[in-house]
Amino acid sequence: MCANTTHDNGVRFSVWAPNHRSVSLVIYGNHGRRVLPMVRGKRGYFSLELDDVAPNMEYKYLCGDVEVPDPASRFQPRGVHGPSMVVNPTFAWGDGSWRGVGREDLVLYELHVGVFTPDGTFSSAASRLDYLKDLGATAVELMPVAQFAGARNWGYDGVLPYAVQNSYGGPDGLKSFVNEAHRRGLGVILDVVYNHIGPEGNYMDTLGPYFSKRYSTPWGKSYNLDEAGCDEVRRFIIQNALYWVYEYHMDGLRLDAVHAIYDCSPRHIVQEICEAVKHAQTELGRNLVVIAESDLNDPRIVRSPQKCGYGADAQWCDDFHHSLHVYLTGERTGYYQDFHGVEDLAKALTMVFVYDGVYSSFREKTHGAPVGDLDGCSFVVYSQNHDQVGNRADGKRLLTLVGELKAKMAATLTILSPYIPLIFMGEEYGETNPFYFFSDFTDPKTAEATRQGKKREMGEHYVDPQSSVSFESSKLDWHKTQTHMGKQFLDYYRHLIAIRRRFNLQCRRNVKLLHTENYLHVARDEVNLLLVFEGSEITCGNWTLEESVGDFPKHVSAGKHMFRNGIAVYIEAK
Amino acid sequence: MCANTTHDNGVRFSVWAPNHRSVSLVIYGNHGRRVLPMVRGKRGYFSLELDDVAPNMEYKYLCGDVEVPDPASRFQPRGVHGPSMVVNPTFAWGDGSWRGVGREDLVLYELHVGVFTPDGTFSSAASRLDYLKDLGATAVELMPVAQFAGARNWGYDGVLPYAVQNSYGGPDGLKSFVNEAHRRGLGVILDVVYNHIGPEGNYMDTLGPYFSKRYSTPWGKSYNLDEAGCDEVRRFIIQNALYWVYEYHMDGLRLDAVHAIYDCSPRHIVQEICEAVKHAQTELGRNLVVIAESDLNDPRIVRSPQKCGYGADAQWCDDFHHSLHVYLTGERTGYYQDFHGVEDLAKALTMVFVYDGVYSSFREKTHGAPVGDLDGCSFVVYSQNHDQVGNRADGKRLLTLVGELKAKMAATLTILSPYIPLIFMGEEYGETNPFYFFSDFTDPKTAEATRQGKKREMGEHYVDPQSSVSFESSKLDWHKTQTHMGKQFLDYYRHLIAIRRRFNLQCRRNVKLLHTENYLHVARDEVNLLLVFEGSEITCGNWTLEESVGDFPKHVSAGKHMFRNGIAVYIEAK
Repeated sequence: MCANTTHDNGVRFSVWAPNHRSVSLVIYGNHGRRVLPMVRGKRGYFSLELDDVAPNMEYKYLCGDVEVPDPASRFQPRGVHGPSMVVNPTFAWGDGSWRGVGREDLVLYELHVGVFTPDGTFSSAASRLDYLKDLGATAVELMPVAQFAGARNWGYDGVLPYAVQNSYGGPDGLKSFVNEAHRRGLGVILDVVYNHIGPEGNYMDTLGPYFSKRYSTPWGKSYNLDEAGCDEVRRFIIQNALYWVYEYHMDGLRLDAVHAIYDCSPRHIVQEICEAVKHAQTELGRNLVVIAESDLNDPRIVRSPQKCGYGADAQWCDDFHHSLHVYLTGERTGYYQDFHGVEDLAKALTMVFVYDGVYSSFREKTHGAPVGDLDGCSFVVYSQNHDQVGNRADGKRLLTLVGELKAKMAATLTILSPYIPLIFMGEEYGETNPFYFFSDFTDPKTAEATRQGKKREMGEHYVDPQSSVSFESSKLDWHKTQTHMGKQFLDYYRHLIAIRRRFNLQCRRNVKLLHTENYLHVARDEVNLLLVFEGSEITCGNWTLEESVGDFPKHVSAGKHMFRNGIAVYIEAK
Repeated sequence: MCANTTHDNGVRFSVWAPNHRSVSLVIYGNHGRRVLPMVRGKRGYFSLELDDVAPNMEYKYLCGDVEVPDPASRFQPRGVHGPSMVVNPTFAWGDGSWRGVGREDLVLYELHVGVFTPDGTFSSAASRLDYLKDLGATAVELMPVAQFAGARNWGYDGVLPYAVQNSYGGPDGLKSFVNEAHRRGLGVILDVVYNHIGPEGNYMDTLGPYFSKRYSTPWGKSYNLDEAGCDEVRRFIIQNALYWVYEYHMDGLRLDAVHAIYDCSPRHIVQEICEAVKHAQTELGRNLVVIAESDLNDPRIVRSPQKCGYGADAQWCDDFHHSLHVYLTGERTGYYQDFHGVEDLAKALTMVFVYDGVYSSFREKTHGAPVGDLDGCSFVVYSQNHDQVGNRADGKRLLTLVGELKAKMAATLTILSPYIPLIFMGEEYGETNPFYFFSDFTDPKTAEATRQGKKREMGEHYVDPQSSVSFESSKLDWHKTQTHMGKQFLDYYRHLIAIRRRFNLQCRRNVKLLHTENYLHVARDEVNLLLVFEGSEITCGNWTLEESVGDFPKHVSAGKHMFRNGIAVYIEAK
């Protein structure tokens, strides 16, 4: 359904519009508007080949009396309501020897292009890639970049899944970013939204049954994955997943909210996406990963198809976050009411899901299933992420809530866990700017509904998402990286990542825990993490200090020792 | 959530009503109405034990200012809006040695209690059990008997899943029917509806989140199986499945429309029902079967959990019906447009699903998945059933459409197939009375909506479902069993069933087909079925005639022979 180049300046235009008996291509050029009837294929497809197309030609499709952008538009230079632009998919790639990142090597860095840098573009984000490489991150995870209404949005309101957000720099900006990342040995994983479509600028509805009559989500319409016409919609989505991999050289995808992807087909579309991406991995000979966000605590997402699963490489694990957050903050409102303290954290560190088939008071139902023998790299953990920070009314980061020592404790447990760690932009240097929910809808009704919705949700601490303040105040303050605290934080994160790698702490679920009210001792074979809240006597082995926050001896011998509060990473002598 | 007897005349009343802070038991007796506050348990349960309850005491639950029947009522002597009645679950069973029917021995006879006999009750239906035994059926499949509004309904509008329809004879009537069936060596399978609830008399909505906020069906509200409160609703349903097995000695369940049972839990409720029933089978030491109606053509329903399935014993196979129907009638409207003739029938006889991952024009999507090596007894087939006859505007049976010879051809292919055959009441003696859709809603709005809905669906041939005519004219005419044609039909069916048993034709998918425009030859090892439409030369072996319709020689020798039109079952000499 893409507008694809055929040869030199040739383009094949194709659109699925079964609601219409005729569709025309409308070309906007220097000589005005030209309307070219398209050829009607079967099952509602319309196509047209043009031999000599001007570079960057703008076009729309005329369906009945409505002109709509191409659902598979690669670029919307004038936003969601404007014309689509023909994009030459070729690019001067310089990453021929790049082989991707295996899931066991992943250290993810989640960033939002708009607020990551003052400029909020791919090219300014690229200027920070050396910094990320130096930190030890192995892959950037980009929040969604599919075209959304306006210039400010988390990205989950995208309406043109193939178009790269114009305000970020469009297709070439993204390709340059990926190319630069690969040149530095960094992977790029893209957050893609297949569970719903945004509220403003969705014209697909007028073309055909792109959306379900049966299911919907709180965030918008569901794609039609198992009703009449679903073959074409499924192809639209699977081709989209492959498009990012082939045309943008992405190293993987993060599938947003797969629990809200409703599909009763014999093969769930998440499984089909995983299979398509695995095939691309074989064909391209580089590592590709599919990471699912799931609220189901259902290991089926990451089990192999042979074991009745969908075959995703990994899935997000909120239970780790929530138990860690409650342990450190003592907060018990909202979904935190389900978490109680160190026992839950211990379960998250050993069994992955705290809710693995037990009753949840918050959900008022039994939740989840045990993960069995899945390895640790099947799960992504974080002490913060865009949702956990940004869905708070106050938008506060963990550092602001608990201070420096506890924030570092959180990083220690996350990065030295058996799971894939994800760092939320800025936490590594101690950013304290908030991360708010922000949007920039141009349709007054949608704008007001979003404003009112957030007001209801957030209560008195409500920050207007439509105001540019919510966006501007969420921007990272890079000056902090130059402060004493910023440098200390960065050193600490860098060292944690190095320790993770050096001692092969990833994937193996070999966690043992000892704890009292005053300390937590996490043993992972020879690596011993001590988180001390209050002066405590702790049983040690013959240990050598590898890293610490606070006052810890370089060596301790087997036996009991008193420690003051702080964090220590000790290595057992072999 | 049942009102259960505890000891002698003791009863424990229990209801799940989390929408309310207090619930009372209201007792209706000779001395007026008594209101007894119930004890509030956790998660919205309310209960009360009474020591000395009069037999057949009537009661309701008072929730806020509304009095509602017990959602788990065993009996509604005055219909869906009236009080519930305490029922002593004990019964003088005489089937202690009964061991059920294995799926490989199933020959199903589907009947609707209301129109099966002139009286339309369980007790008059029981008087026909000797007839069914003599026919060779091994199990009766009862269309749903859960209490619905009014006295006439197919049963899919039930609203009290534990209550046995009052107009059929209530709990004792049903138990007597099952007991009499078992005494004759006949099983009883009950059609149960867990995909939706009927439109009139559903009071559960006022009590708590019994129904989904997320999903719905064209026929009514969906039960809440994966949202807040779903644990209790799932228990309500699973206990219902077990209730029929334990308290009514049912030999199995037919789960209506499992494709419309939406459940994103780690374990689908259909799987959970199958596991619960399999456990009961182990505990009771008698065969129990779970048969699913599914429109998905997805073998997951019947695959074992070890092979990623739900573990149902069998599922209905509409593709067999549709290809057979189109082959014999030439009809091509509605869903019949997907079927084309003998090739589809051949595929149904060998591969089970015609749509096993191929594109369906009617559905406008790719449909189904291959069944692999599942055995034939994993599928139930029929040349007619309540839906295929009753959802026609004209309510016409196959015999009326195609005449005697072709109707017998249909029976031959169905009963001598590798699958579990289902006979729709009356077809075995050549009934020609129609089977219409009928209802008897007492709520004027629901009545009118049903009437208008059927009118839209059926067009000019519309028969008013609310009129008693639709019900009365659907009744079987038992006098036909005494006619010459009736007797011939019965003999033919009886003999087909005997042949199926004698030559072990069930389960083994050993079908080979040869066909021209004029005949169809189905070979199943030594058994050869010839369906001859026009005089044809057919290659034979050394065959002996076992059964025929028309003029066929007793013996044929290997070589080509001319046959006139008719049906023959020949057995190859060993």
